[in-house]
Amino acid sequence: MAEKKKIGILGASGYTGAELVRLLLRHPRVEIVLLTADRRAGQMMGDVFPQFAPYDLPRLVAIDSVDWPNASLDLLFCALPHATTQKVLKDVFAKAPGIKVVDLSADFRLEDASAYAKWYGHEHHALELQQKAVYGLVEVYRRDIRKARLVANPGCYTTCAQLPLVPLLKARAIETDEIVIDAKSGMTGAGRSAKEEMLFSEVSEGFNAYGIGHHRHMAELDQEFSKAAGKDVMVSFTPHLVPMNRGIFSTIYVRGRRGKTAQDFHDILAKHYDKEPFVHVLPFGKAPQSRHVRGSNMTFIGVVADRIAGRAIIISTLDNLTKGASGQAVQNMNLVLGLPETAGIDQPPMFP
Amino acid sequence: MAEKKKIGILGASGYTGAELVRLLLRHPRVEIVLLTADRRAGQMMGDVFPQFAPYDLPRLVAIDSVDWPNASLDLLFCALPHATTQKVLKDVFAKAPGIKVVDLSADFRLEDASAYAKWYGHEHHALELQQKAVYGLVEVYRRDIRKARLVANPGCYTTCAQLPLVPLLKARAIETDEIVIDAKSGMTGAGRSAKEEMLFSEVSEGFNAYGIGHHRHMAELDQEFSKAAGKDVMVSFTPHLVPMNRGIFSTIYVRGRRGKTAQDFHDILAKHYDKEPFVHVLPFGKAPQSRHVRGSNMTFIGVVADRIAGRAIIISTLDNLTKGASGQAVQNMNLVLGLPETAGIDQPPMFP
Amino acid sequence: MAEKKKIGILGASGYTGAELVRLLLRHPRVEIVLLTADRRAGQMMGDVFPQFAPYDLPRLVAIDSVDWPNASLDLLFCALPHATTQKVLKDVFAKAPGIKVVDLSADFRLEDASAYAKWYGHEHHALELQQKAVYGLVEVYRRDIRKARLVANPGCYTTCAQLPLVPLLKARAIETDEIVIDAKSGMTGAGRSAKEEMLFSEVSEGFNAYGIGHHRHMAELDQEFSKAAGKDVMVSFTPHLVPMNRGIFSTIYVRGRRGKTAQDFHDILAKHYDKEPFVHVLPFGKAPQSRHVRGSNMTFIGVVADRIAGRAIIISTLDNLTKGASGQAVQNMNLVLGLPETAGIDQPPMFP
Amino acid sequence: MAEKKKIGILGASGYTGAELVRLLLRHPRVEIVLLTADRRAGQMMGDVFPQFAPYDLPRLVAIDSVDWPNASLDLLFCALPHATTQKVLKDVFAKAPGIKVVDLSADFRLEDASAYAKWYGHEHHALELQQKAVYGLVEVYRRDIRKARLVANPGCYTTCAQLPLVPLLKARAIETDEIVIDAKSGMTGAGRSAKEEMLFSEVSEGFNAYGIGHHRHMAELDQEFSKAAGKDVMVSFTPHLVPMNRGIFSTIYVRGRRGKTAQDFHDILAKHYDKEPFVHVLPFGKAPQSRHVRGSNMTFIGVVADRIAGRAIIISTLDNLTKGASGQAVQNMNLVLGLPETAGIDQPPMFP
Repeated sequence: MAEKKKIGILGASGYTGAELVRLLLRHPRVEIVLLTADRRAGQMMGDVFPQFAPYDLPRLVAIDSVDWPNASLDLLFCALPHATTQKVLKDVFAKAPGIKVVDLSADFRLEDASAYAKWYGHEHHALELQQKAVYGLVEVYRRDIRKARLVANPGCYTTCAQLPLVPLLKARAIETDEIVIDAKSGMTGAGRSAKEEMLFSEVSEGFNAYGIGHHRHMAELDQEFSKAAGKDVMVSFTPHLVPMNRGIFSTIYVRGRRGKTAQDFHDILAKHYDKEPFVHVLPFGKAPQSRHVRGSNMTFIGVVADRIAGRAIIISTLDNLTKGASGQAVQNMNLVLGLPETAGIDQPPMFP
Repeated sequence: MAEKKKIGILGASGYTGAELVRLLLRHPRVEIVLLTADRRAGQMMGDVFPQFAPYDLPRLVAIDSVDWPNASLDLLFCALPHATTQKVLKDVFAKAPGIKVVDLSADFRLEDASAYAKWYGHEHHALELQQKAVYGLVEVYRRDIRKARLVANPGCYTTCAQLPLVPLLKARAIETDEIVIDAKSGMTGAGRSAKEEMLFSEVSEGFNAYGIGHHRHMAELDQEFSKAAGKDVMVSFTPHLVPMNRGIFSTIYVRGRRGKTAQDFHDILAKHYDKEPFVHVLPFGKAPQSRHVRGSNMTFIGVVADRIAGRAIIISTLDNLTKGASGQAVQNMNLVLGLPETAGIDQPPMFP
Repeated sequence: MAEKKKIGILGASGYTGAELVRLLLRHPRVEIVLLTADRRAGQMMGDVFPQFAPYDLPRLVAIDSVDWPNASLDLLFCALPHATTQKVLKDVFAKAPGIKVVDLSADFRLEDASAYAKWYGHEHHALELQQKAVYGLVEVYRRDIRKARLVANPGCYTTCAQLPLVPLLKARAIETDEIVIDAKSGMTGAGRSAKEEMLFSEVSEGFNAYGIGHHRHMAELDQEFSKAAGKDVMVSFTPHLVPMNRGIFSTIYVRGRRGKTAQDFHDILAKHYDKEPFVHVLPFGKAPQSRHVRGSNMTFIGVVADRIAGRAIIISTLDNLTKGASGQAVQNMNLVLGLPETAGIDQPPMFP
Repeated sequence: MAEKKKIGILGASGYTGAELVRLLLRHPRVEIVLLTADRRAGQMMGDVFPQFAPYDLPRLVAIDSVDWPNASLDLLFCALPHATTQKVLKDVFAKAPGIKVVDLSADFRLEDASAYAKWYGHEHHALELQQKAVYGLVEVYRRDIRKARLVANPGCYTTCAQLPLVPLLKARAIETDEIVIDAKSGMTGAGRSAKEEMLFSEVSEGFNAYGIGHHRHMAELDQEFSKAAGKDVMVSFTPHLVPMNRGIFSTIYVRGRRGKTAQDFHDILAKHYDKEPFVHVLPFGKAPQSRHVRGSNMTFIGVVADRIAGRAIIISTLDNLTKGASGQAVQNMNLVLGLPETAGIDQPPMFP
């Protein structure tokens, strides 16, 4: 058997870090040799996530204590918060120029420095790295990713919206000024930080929207939709929180262009994703449920005709921690390292 | 103290029946003297809903066993399934012509017999009653309801959508061909019948849409929106199920007409509902959460500007069992019987 | 109508504070004139708990800003954290000697100063107040409470365990060295502070015990059980957290003494609580569910025979925020102020 | 690579059937060649469990349509309801005498025909098969299982209780007449049949016990505990339902025998399970949570000293669908077929 690739994870004490560990522990071709978590440095992974207590994993260390030139990593996952990421990765690449990185933050997703500055309120701190980054939506940029040194793993909301819409925009099949994306997310999408509004008693038995009219993910959607459509596209996008742990579910309202109908949208998507291992298009008129992709790297897409002529409702759903974050990151890793694309992320969904 | 009005409830073993009992038990001016539940006839209400075991309530009886001419009811709530209702109420009115009824089913909500036939697949069985029915959206039809003998209590989804949209349509403030209503409901909206897809293990930790493109509530929306707008209006409406018990949450996407903006929508609604006891409009730019109306008869409405010029996102939320069903039914009862409109339904929401 | 009593609440930004407001808003004989919340001082109650936005309530103030001698309060609820309470109430009584207080913290529940010091790790700071405090388990100490100036409202776990066990211990019906109380609580019992282990994503879809072998509530149980039994009693008590918002559910394992059986336990409890408005004993062999008391001040108790001769399983359940905290506090207030005991807390449970 | 073993599943439309499919789809040494579901015969597995739509699986057939002599199965899982199982397996073994079976029902767990008749109310219909069945608690009966033709897979509650208690009973470390097992289960333990009391709206936001004093699982506990202790043992056992999908969590109260303490219990268990792949004993004084074993075949056990001298609280938790049913069934299959014991069931838990 081939030697295992050596993998590190920055930010292992968050949910996407834990999901990476879950997936990589069963990956046949890699081994985890570095785990960092600054506030939990010195502890075992099983202290931070008790489900990993029975497993043999490296002790958590602080980022500053890593000897990058001698770390001998084949690939590094970065699951750090926004802004921190830029600073850290700039330093890592300086010390270990040959390293390959899959970054799960939003820091390297926007190609346009001014768009970044506008949405994030400050200049980008690592513009030269940004220019080398490849946007990691595998089903769109697979070829580029294979050659990348730094992959910017897409956001969970945006992956869920792009997979159905990008092919339709490329096909010029839908009107671009009437797209509404009503998106719903499980609570793990909000991360593990202790905030009052994320307490069980605040969340359970209720539903709410947030970031209405001005959510940062819009920048990523604008960039990719405009590229796909060949012109500026701006969509209405509203994210909501569902009292569940995992899952993104997007209800997308579109109007056909030049006589294109819901059935056409379905045919375009069904054909486009026919060979993709992680995108499943349901029969026309059927809609998927978030629970049926839970824990897997799958995206399920359904297309239904609206009763209003020319309009359609498209449902797209994925697990925000898997295809929406760590699963797609492993998919990117597989491409970057030349491993089989589905290795380590081929487990079926877990329902119920 | 004035003598208490005598109230009956048909269909007391369902959730809306139980919610009526919860509210009426503390209503200062009425008493429950009749409870029917055909399959549970002979049992106590506490056998069907153990929370009522400590209360003194009439034993459940079968509808056929009621002696209508001598029942001496001031008002009857009908919480029976669709279609059954028509047959039963026709019979009740024949035997007790002076009775007043608030019906919680969909049977008498559509004025147009052909719309009914189209959506329900059969002729209406009590058309002469239909013609006397008053649509019970109190904030719109309060005056007519006071004089009604048969009130058709509105649906939960439609109440939640009409309260924000009817005033805007009447004011001609929004475009009528681009309205998208993305609606989310708690599970009690699906009733108490034992179906596989409603089991806890099927519902928990997941999210899904249903009735996409062709939900029956659309007929009620078409009727009321068209009346309000003075022309035919058809909206995109998609209902979803949230893993929670109570709550309707509607995210509504609209575009302003003739330069009207989100701020204008807010001002129209804030002014319109200024004196209403059960509609609360939040400050401009703020959105409500379903949990903050739970158990109460309140509807909370928020208006937020979209980043796309001229577009707005309106959030409306209510408790589907209270303002969306039994609470509004009691509100209608209060009007029909000449009681204070808020009697028995003035309890604050229960959060957490 | 009699003039309304003037009520203040210290610590209105926590869950028990909010529950007090919910109940008192509909209490016919009191009005809320003071609400404190140090970190939210200056805000409206609707900023902290949006469900109260439509209600007319005093603005939140800091405790230090209250002019106690001129506050003219008839009664003060104290819903502050442990230890803080002692200091604050000492000061309040010094400045407003005639005030009456119902305290919801654990600070004044233990009569024995050494027990307090042992369980809390420091001397009590207001021992002279402690000596005047009356333990507020209404069904046991109703007569004393009527004359009290300071009522120590019991804990949620302990109320749920005492209501079934105290009468059995007084009757010498059960062995005292084999009592096991396996208690389960909804998450609101843990309060509103932002802690990682209370996040939705940490709590949902899981179950755990905590404070195993050494939970502070044991001190309160030891005190009251020993008093009831006339000898030292120490029970095995394990608290657990259920992924739900409200409810305490206790499964209690006991062995009969001198031939007493489960049927005897049932008869003792049924007779004992026959006239109590807030304790409902189910028929022998039936067990209650936590959902059926939600939102109400009721305790439901069931007694079932174990298959092991002489042993019984007793189930007791209440809503931790109502009978387990704020509802019982209002019950105590009613007694202290000479109001009808059930005023303001007679709403039926809310299920579903 | 060795040829894959051919596997069939009877009763594939239930939750344990789906869990078998989830696990076997990634098992490197087997393939699923037969799936039965009488009421869904003719449908695809993806119609019954949409998560499997992307996978290549045999179409569901009726049991009666299977040609057993020519089915060429290496092993058959039986996930049928109680009683049906006896009849079906008798027939299968008659037609395919060489077949090997892992049965997930309770039908073959009780060795004593009179115990069976007492608990199930009728004579066993396949006593001769019963005599050949091996009880499939792997950690206790591994050697016998390897040679078995019919393995009776243990119940979820009983596995969770036996793993900590059997070694302690064998070591004569605890008193046998004071054992209390307070067990809590996720809702999938109740299966997939459409019953009112299992609806989301009935289950969510509540907690309850059931089968109090007389649950059928007690028979299995009596049998195994008495064998382990070398004398008749009868325990107090109360099952409860938690509003979550997966997980068994048992809080076990024991008293040490002849001076044995909680620390001794811990040492016995830690040593006993040191080499077991699927049992993890936490450090003394620590307790596990159900969420940290979710989706895995692990059992986590913790031992904590009670404050009452000589008493301990033992917490044991597993996933009822995995180690409590289908995961253990695969573990049994691996032993029966001579495959590596952990094959296909080595995925880490999924949290959050």
